[in-house]
Amino acid sequence: MDNRAADLKAVTHIDNVRLGGDGKSVVIIDQTKLPNAAEYLTLRTAEDFYNAIFELKVRGAPAIGICAAYGIAVLASQIDTEDYSIFLEKFRKYKEYLNSSRPTAVNLSWALNRMEQTVLRHQDESTAQIKDLLLKESRSIQEEDMQMCRAISEYGLSLLKDGDGILTHCNAGPLATSRYGTALGPLFLGKEQGMTFHVFADETRPLLQGARLTSYELYKGGIDVTLICDNMAGIVMKNGWVQACLVGCDRIAANGDTANKIGTSVVAVLADYYKIPFYVLGPTSTIDMNCPTGEDIRIELRSPEEIRSKFYAEPMALEEIPCYNPAFDVTPAGLITAIITEYGIARAPYEESLKEIFRKKKTGALPD
Amino acid sequence: MDNRAADLKAVTHIDNVRLGGDGKSVVIIDQTKLPNAAEYLTLRTAEDFYNAIFELKVRGAPAIGICAAYGIAVLASQIDTEDYSIFLEKFRKYKEYLNSSRPTAVNLSWALNRMEQTVLRHQDESTAQIKDLLLKESRSIQEEDMQMCRAISEYGLSLLKDGDGILTHCNAGPLATSRYGTALGPLFLGKEQGMTFHVFADETRPLLQGARLTSYELYKGGIDVTLICDNMAGIVMKNGWVQACLVGCDRIAANGDTANKIGTSVVAVLADYYKIPFYVLGPTSTIDMNCPTGEDIRIELRSPEEIRSKFYAEPMALEEIPCYNPAFDVTPAGLITAIITEYGIARAPYEESLKEIFRKKKTGALPD
Repeated sequence: MDNRAADLKAVTHIDNVRLGGDGKSVVIIDQTKLPNAAEYLTLRTAEDFYNAIFELKVRGAPAIGICAAYGIAVLASQIDTEDYSIFLEKFRKYKEYLNSSRPTAVNLSWALNRMEQTVLRHQDESTAQIKDLLLKESRSIQEEDMQMCRAISEYGLSLLKDGDGILTHCNAGPLATSRYGTALGPLFLGKEQGMTFHVFADETRPLLQGARLTSYELYKGGIDVTLICDNMAGIVMKNGWVQACLVGCDRIAANGDTANKIGTSVVAVLADYYKIPFYVLGPTSTIDMNCPTGEDIRIELRSPEEIRSKFYAEPMALEEIPCYNPAFDVTPAGLITAIITEYGIARAPYEESLKEIFRKKKTGALPD
Repeated sequence: MDNRAADLKAVTHIDNVRLGGDGKSVVIIDQTKLPNAAEYLTLRTAEDFYNAIFELKVRGAPAIGICAAYGIAVLASQIDTEDYSIFLEKFRKYKEYLNSSRPTAVNLSWALNRMEQTVLRHQDESTAQIKDLLLKESRSIQEEDMQMCRAISEYGLSLLKDGDGILTHCNAGPLATSRYGTALGPLFLGKEQGMTFHVFADETRPLLQGARLTSYELYKGGIDVTLICDNMAGIVMKNGWVQACLVGCDRIAANGDTANKIGTSVVAVLADYYKIPFYVLGPTSTIDMNCPTGEDIRIELRSPEEIRSKFYAEPMALEEIPCYNPAFDVTPAGLITAIITEYGIARAPYEESLKEIFRKKKTGALPD
């Protein structure tokens, strides 16, 4: 086996966030250094955790939640008291501090609240026991995310054939989640089962998540990947090289309209024109049954500098040129072949099928 | 009038190539420095002309042809002999040298051959007279290009309404041609007539001609322009901000299938989906009646580094990631609302309407 093959095997699973062997640290891959360097950071102090999240060294909503859960478990283990109320007070200070690192990331506050509930539920036990329970709870959060990704991957894989060409946009892979990812999950799972896919990764302007992260993790996972500019999605479809499109999602309305990274709707229109199935993959937590349609989803507008100058050695447009820079767009439900969740596959009419997914979630366990 | 308004008025027409006032030099805008600096270069020697073309300081097929014609006229004026055969020999050396600067640009050899014909047609006249005729011929080449662009602009403008939102892709404006440009021509002409347009310029990955050149020349021409990433074309159409798409062309097949900058066919599919007219603008010289359909057009593949690393402060994808980088794609005739040439507007069925355009070209003059 040559060095390159050995290297590939070693990194089939990217450890984006894990608890250090001593239980007193968290190890993350520094996503801001990708793809030019794979640097691992060991986080120990409250400032370490805050800065890692604030500076996007760890990114992707599920990954942020997992990092914060591990972080507060590590910090709690260093609280030197046997008095519960002193312990709780110090715990809450850490929680508040970490939670302020990226106040809008839902998974961050969700994970920290869940860790706090562990402390509150066990106030009759010793602080030593509570510290152990916190480490256990943080591991559960990562394991549950892994199971959710695994279930989505299995449902997604059931829609693909060995040898398929796949087009994906932006990044919803292992770096953002645990192990499999959502949109990329079926590809990693299929690879484990000996299947082969040929993936076209849209570079995904302006922030280039496809170039910097998706092509990186597919390559490192030993999956055949070709990087293209976003405007090349049409020609690869026309060439007959794409049998399915797989994308993640940021918010799904009750009627199936789906907000995701800007350009996702363009991929969907192209897939419709070239008669290629277009699949949205994501956990049920992204389905917002209180949001009737895509019209009700507000689109975040971001800085013109992301288009004009970010990443470049020198600006590519005059400072005076206005730029329109929406972070997301909405793909109408009519262009979506299926929505794949950890509780199964929904198809049109989505008003009905998404409700059915939630009925399953209420009653059923995840598939083994 | 504030400084900014004065500046705008002064640069309404970008002088991309012109003969120096002394008739012994050519002045060009250095396109490699745009948009960060508008530097004008004065070219006098054979090496100056060669390097300006070779290093893409002047680019766009018509602009290259014009620069070479002016260049050889200037060089010929410096040939110090009254002997015709010595003059012709030296002329041909210059011609050969300039022609080797970019051997694949059709307009370059076309313009140089036309200049040579001027020398050959007038072998009975004095070298002083021939030198004057060469200067005159070079001016004719630029004037004819200007008239061609003007005619295309007028036909194109007849399809637009005051206040229209326009989407364009890549660059087919004044920098690449003379004065008006082709795809951007109707906008500059309309502006002169007091009309207002709101233009969305696709940045046009990977070489960013939309960001670097199109947004630059529209802004300098006082036309309202907003720069977007290519994958945002869908959302601006969905928002109702686009009433027409205007694009240039590199080659039009006899059935109307049109090769143009990569991503053009994506704009066409989106325009079809959002029910927006999609117009192709270009001179009849780009219509290849010997090429039956788009299937017969070979697509040039370019370097992966244009996607991975060009323009960036550091690479955006691992060196090991393969990139597919086609320079052009083919838009099927069925997605093209009309093809606008200097001899009129062709609509489907293009097999017939393009033939009719050529019948007009054979017999008729350009519109005044």
